[in-house]
Amino acid sequence: MTGAEYIAEFLRRRGSTNVFLITGGACAFIVDAIGRNPGMKYTCFQHEQAAAMAADSLWRTNKIVGATVVTSGPGATNLITGIACSFFDSIPTIHITGQVNQNEELNYKGAKVRQAGFQETNIVDMVKPITKYAVKITDSTNLKQELCKAYSIAISGRMGPVLVDIPMDVQQADVGEYSEVGFEATETVTNAKPADFLATVNEFFKTGERPLVLFGAGVGLAGAEVETEAWLIERKIPFVSSWNGMTYFNHEAPNYCGNIGVYGNRGANFLIQNCDRLLVLGSRLDNRQRSGNAGSFAKSARVLVIDIDNEELIKYQNNTNYEPGVNFDLSKLAAVLTDIKTPFQSDNWIEYWTNSKEKYFGKIPSSIPEKYGTISPLEAVRKINKVIPRNSIVVADDGANLCWVFQSFFRTEQTIYTAGGNSPMGYAFPASIGAAIYNKDRRVIAFTGDGSMQMNIQDLQTMKFNDLDIKLIILNNFGYGIIKQFQDLYFNGRHHATGEGYSQPDFGKLVEGYGIEYHKIEKIEDLRGDIFAAKGPAVIDIFLHPDTMIEPKLEMGRSIEDQFPYLPDEEFNSAMRFGFNARLEVLRKKSAPEV
Amino acid sequence: MTGAEYIAEFLRRRGSTNVFLITGGACAFIVDAIGRNPGMKYTCFQHEQAAAMAADSLWRTNKIVGATVVTSGPGATNLITGIACSFFDSIPTIHITGQVNQNEELNYKGAKVRQAGFQETNIVDMVKPITKYAVKITDSTNLKQELCKAYSIAISGRMGPVLVDIPMDVQQADVGEYSEVGFEATETVTNAKPADFLATVNEFFKTGERPLVLFGAGVGLAGAEVETEAWLIERKIPFVSSWNGMTYFNHEAPNYCGNIGVYGNRGANFLIQNCDRLLVLGSRLDNRQRSGNAGSFAKSARVLVIDIDNEELIKYQNNTNYEPGVNFDLSKLAAVLTDIKTPFQSDNWIEYWTNSKEKYFGKIPSSIPEKYGTISPLEAVRKINKVIPRNSIVVADDGANLCWVFQSFFRTEQTIYTAGGNSPMGYAFPASIGAAIYNKDRRVIAFTGDGSMQMNIQDLQTMKFNDLDIKLIILNNFGYGIIKQFQDLYFNGRHHATGEGYSQPDFGKLVEGYGIEYHKIEKIEDLRGDIFAAKGPAVIDIFLHPDTMIEPKLEMGRSIEDQFPYLPDEEFNSAMRFGFNARLEVLRKKSAPEV
Repeated sequence: MTGAEYIAEFLRRRGSTNVFLITGGACAFIVDAIGRNPGMKYTCFQHEQAAAMAADSLWRTNKIVGATVVTSGPGATNLITGIACSFFDSIPTIHITGQVNQNEELNYKGAKVRQAGFQETNIVDMVKPITKYAVKITDSTNLKQELCKAYSIAISGRMGPVLVDIPMDVQQADVGEYSEVGFEATETVTNAKPADFLATVNEFFKTGERPLVLFGAGVGLAGAEVETEAWLIERKIPFVSSWNGMTYFNHEAPNYCGNIGVYGNRGANFLIQNCDRLLVLGSRLDNRQRSGNAGSFAKSARVLVIDIDNEELIKYQNNTNYEPGVNFDLSKLAAVLTDIKTPFQSDNWIEYWTNSKEKYFGKIPSSIPEKYGTISPLEAVRKINKVIPRNSIVVADDGANLCWVFQSFFRTEQTIYTAGGNSPMGYAFPASIGAAIYNKDRRVIAFTGDGSMQMNIQDLQTMKFNDLDIKLIILNNFGYGIIKQFQDLYFNGRHHATGEGYSQPDFGKLVEGYGIEYHKIEKIEDLRGDIFAAKGPAVIDIFLHPDTMIEPKLEMGRSIEDQFPYLPDEEFNSAMRFGFNARLEVLRKKSAPEV
Repeated sequence: MTGAEYIAEFLRRRGSTNVFLITGGACAFIVDAIGRNPGMKYTCFQHEQAAAMAADSLWRTNKIVGATVVTSGPGATNLITGIACSFFDSIPTIHITGQVNQNEELNYKGAKVRQAGFQETNIVDMVKPITKYAVKITDSTNLKQELCKAYSIAISGRMGPVLVDIPMDVQQADVGEYSEVGFEATETVTNAKPADFLATVNEFFKTGERPLVLFGAGVGLAGAEVETEAWLIERKIPFVSSWNGMTYFNHEAPNYCGNIGVYGNRGANFLIQNCDRLLVLGSRLDNRQRSGNAGSFAKSARVLVIDIDNEELIKYQNNTNYEPGVNFDLSKLAAVLTDIKTPFQSDNWIEYWTNSKEKYFGKIPSSIPEKYGTISPLEAVRKINKVIPRNSIVVADDGANLCWVFQSFFRTEQTIYTAGGNSPMGYAFPASIGAAIYNKDRRVIAFTGDGSMQMNIQDLQTMKFNDLDIKLIILNNFGYGIIKQFQDLYFNGRHHATGEGYSQPDFGKLVEGYGIEYHKIEKIEDLRGDIFAAKGPAVIDIFLHPDTMIEPKLEMGRSIEDQFPYLPDEEFNSAMRFGFNARLEVLRKKSAPEV
């Protein structure tokens, strides 16, 4: 078989049976081989960026490694923003880029020219900072080995994207019969054995009386979510989650208290700031969780972080309230969970977190809609949440729409996700396309904003052509609401490139131009269940007041318990009764006599 | 002033007075400073890729360094395909990317995490292969120096793009009064002095009787185009051009014989293959000029290449028919041109190139349109060529539409260009936006295809909102014609991901959805001059037969004189009467007795 045929068959055997692509001169042989393989399908996108984001979606929804095939040069570079989504969120994907025939460079040896072949680009070096492995196959005899190696690396240890760059001569070369070359990724060997992990956790919980667990995405990426959820419920330990962790358990758990962070639930943030023992399972505690003022996070607690990536543990070495983290593969967690001793909880603490959940969980006011009588995005999300099937797939985009969805969506059995670390404008829609292609029996809901909608608007054509069952919801606040809110705070309300200079089309005309059903929603009553009951593509354009804010939201420099809009001192002080109270500290300093 | 204010003022003083941008958290301070600078404007794009391509356009049209400002992470990575256009075509551009606050990483020192701050990405390492200089400013006291250095590097020597990554703390820092720091880019010192260049050229032309000059883009990038054109006409030396060179002289010159290459003019290619002395002025002879079979190029000639980039000369060291190239800055060409002795031309040669021009220049048949009575794209281009003002700006995209435009456009005073080396789908339209913003008094014409139109369709909004005087022409062949032609030749007509799987919207509905004038052209008579006479944005959708081919076109492995459709032996042999005739060589080998 040829190199191209090998690639097609290799992907088929791993379940990546629908490849997301745009064809071009340098990848035409691979595309043709995929087309000829009876077990393979492909989907044509209108921009490679969308193909990469759709591929990123597949592990999140189906535990399948998403695959793209694109041409050299611009085809390859157009993938980059999508690849970065996978890298920062530990999602395995494989990207096959065609490269120009190597004999086109033969005469160039020794010359450091900017470009040898037409559309030739050094994509391998370019993606090194955002892939686990990137390699150009210069000899067809290495193709099998390198493809097996790249794939193994993608799905082992802390997972992530890989890229294999394949010149046209390698695609056309005879590589013999189908066979595979074993490769064991060394990083799967992590430091801690289950027994050591167990001992550390039991030692950690031996003291303290206000325990808390943070449920991170790493639990789910390791496949330990079912057991972890059951254990947390059985042991009645209060737990909170990161945004990427939220998709891995049922929010009906009586001791789940919300997600944390800059835009997190007030109650969940209070728990972080009042607990005395915080066990972090598989979360990298990025700055949208800990805030820019990371040192103020869990300031009154000892923190123990469990992570598969040792570098993520090294980063805490300057934080004195962190235990040495445990470099542990959570796929081995289920086996030792029952041996973890249930941490002691004081009655005060049980009362505290029960009340905190009662007071703040699922209850977020939205001041601008209340003031003007316009639609509250939080209410819209909750309404949609209730009418869609329990097994729906829900994708959120970036900026304000992302915050609103993750602030108010109550997950039971749905799959809900976003590209948390990279958070590009325009992720949700192409991601939903990937999800819909691999899940014909599930309803797919994508939330986006008006600015983000424009970023990948071209792929409405892909949705239409493939008749995908996606409900694409625009939380339309007429221009980069998250930036406007920032400008109001720091730039005296000057709205450069948001209110002023930014523009958007009439989405209704465009959506109908693509032949897709369109619903304009100007009153919450118009957001009817039947819109979501019918199968097939539709765009639902929900008009918000342009000043609709993200609430609550942390302002720069603050610690996560003290979000805007600011709570009255009485409520705040009561909520901070166990933890370090920064507000009181400021008052104390102000009233202290000057020295 | 703050770092952000310094950036705005720095760009203003260099004439980059309209910055192409999308705002975001990490660049908001710079955008605000631009908005507050009374000498500055900005244009909001709907995708950063389009902003970078628009910026790439400005040196080609106005000798202004195009500037973009975007946010960290996806904002920055979305620029990459556009930056690559500038790099491969030696176009200076400056890209300012916001980066996360450095104090967000303070605690991370020593840990090699995938990402520290939210949306943090190592853009500097990623763009190193496609920029002349890329730097992150980690200390605000270096801002002035680094910005001056980056800009100097962009416009000196062989020009190209630069990227400056600026953390939010540096944007906000006080950098004092406005001042600049001198920086002399060392690469401007090239090896050859004008006298040495002169001696080499005169020695080169001392012998031989069939001289030819290739007019490359380097002549124009060095600002030597007017004198070079006058010199060529005065000395009556036949000359041909590269695609990127075509914009720098009037094609009415009696001794200009067409552009060369894989899709080049037959007559021009015959000249290359029959001359005995080829002087190449500022062209890198990429593989779309020399073909993949580069060794067959100008096989019967001695070749002397003049290039500002010495690496481009090193690459010929294995080609025995090339003289050692001259590493010379063509901006010094004008001063020595008159001292170049006019090369001798035999009467046979003068008759040959005169006849060749007469026979092939501006005369290209298009077989499919002739067969089906559909529109010939070449005829459409020629018709548009005639009705637009002589000072129009014309941008071509990629693939088939690019070939058709450069095969048939006759340049008098127009500016005509494309992103030759990178050649991404979707370049022409955003490039035309950049051109239109800086040239309110000139008509801008962009040619694209149906596949490429979809790549940056979102920026129809930018065209509409800014009421730009662009006529955007879709040479609509219903799906990746250049790839279909390849598939017909090599894949037995299997049209995977082109005819099959590819789809496109009804552009009329979308264009009108954006509120833009739309013309559907199904007969050549409907392509009326009045469509181009009115000011303002319009899209002209020219329907072609889906099988419309690129003719002539070189097939893989051949040398450039023998393009498809194949000429009869008699015509071919006559045209190859001075040069190495590969067809005859094949015959000779076939008829030779086996040994």
